[in-house]
Amino acid sequence: MSEVVKEVIAANASYVADFGNKSDLPMPPARQFAILTCMDARLDPAKYAGLAEGDAHVIRNAGGRASDDAIRSLVISYKLLGTKEWFVIHHTDCGMETFTTEIMGDLLSSSLKTSSVDASCWHDSNAGDGTTDGKYINWLTITDQEKSVLEDVQRIRNNSMVPSEIPIYGYIYDCKTGSLNEVLAATEAGKVG
Amino acid sequence: MSEVVKEVIAANASYVADFGNKSDLPMPPARQFAILTCMDARLDPAKYAGLAEGDAHVIRNAGGRASDDAIRSLVISYKLLGTKEWFVIHHTDCGMETFTTEIMGDLLSSSLKTSSVDASCWHDSNAGDGTTDGKYINWLTITDQEKSVLEDVQRIRNNSMVPSEIPIYGYIYDCKTGSLNEVLAATEAGKVG
Repeated sequence: MSEVVKEVIAANASYVADFGNKSDLPMPPARQFAILTCMDARLDPAKYAGLAEGDAHVIRNAGGRASDDAIRSLVISYKLLGTKEWFVIHHTDCGMETFTTEIMGDLLSSSLKTSSVDASCWHDSNAGDGTTDGKYINWLTITDQEKSVLEDVQRIRNNSMVPSEIPIYGYIYDCKTGSLNEVLAATEAGKVG
Repeated sequence: MSEVVKEVIAANASYVADFGNKSDLPMPPARQFAILTCMDARLDPAKYAGLAEGDAHVIRNAGGRASDDAIRSLVISYKLLGTKEWFVIHHTDCGMETFTTEIMGDLLSSSLKTSSVDASCWHDSNAGDGTTDGKYINWLTITDQEKSVLEDVQRIRNNSMVPSEIPIYGYIYDCKTGSLNEVLAATEAGKVG
């Protein structure tokens, strides 16, 4: 067993010992909202947004992007589990700003198992030219956080399975201060539907 | 401003006030691992696995499934930010066990904006017959948690961009006790590559 696994199992045992009355929490989020944010290790959405167990859905991926899979999750969150407000929260100093799809393609082709990656199963592959080479996977990189929040709020809003009455709030988390800063236009986009 | 937004902003202000020395945390996860788990409101991965800010990547979606987007995130986590071990953690009493793709298609067609959903952008659409109707989106539902963990560990393992030396551990989180329970065969699958 690796050191990491030992540490996780030990931490989990402490959590179980203090589990208290959380056994009977219902499945639907008590506070009826969902957060889509980045997988970044520095972000703890439960802490930065004040969530207790049972409060809200938390969806996370590289960048906190409104990928098809994030939208799948949000639609389930609303339709089956009753969330009524959604937050899209990107953050400063995001890893997704440090590379491009071209760089990632080069990295992969020089070091992984195969030089030509089968990307036929990738939802965002085929950067216009129909190829499925690893270089053309869309890694959903970010050049500007305000823009990426706006784009993602709009992408969710435009999805035909998303009901127009759900507000979608856009924020940027500041890794230097822990602060959530509103991206006004995104919130507006969320309101106007 | 909605009550939820007010509460989130107030909670965030408290977090900022106690932010302490977290300003200088580096971007790469200090403990070099990543967790893929469900968006379920009852799950707090930082608490159940003992993560401090800066420790590990956390990827979450409906079911904790190894979707293409989750694999995108894991490959970035490894390749650009140095994680070396991955956990796939599903859980008991998951919402993804409560419906089927057919039920979801019916729900959507009866109540959302359009009766025929454009699923052409969905990575898991086209259930074999080439149609793009909302009924044929693959919602990645679950019938058996052990099976879904196994499937997802294997799906990640089989992806040509995933290096064979990364261990992938499979666990089921028990919502009644807070306990992480190993799915042995999944862990084995992770080890053998």
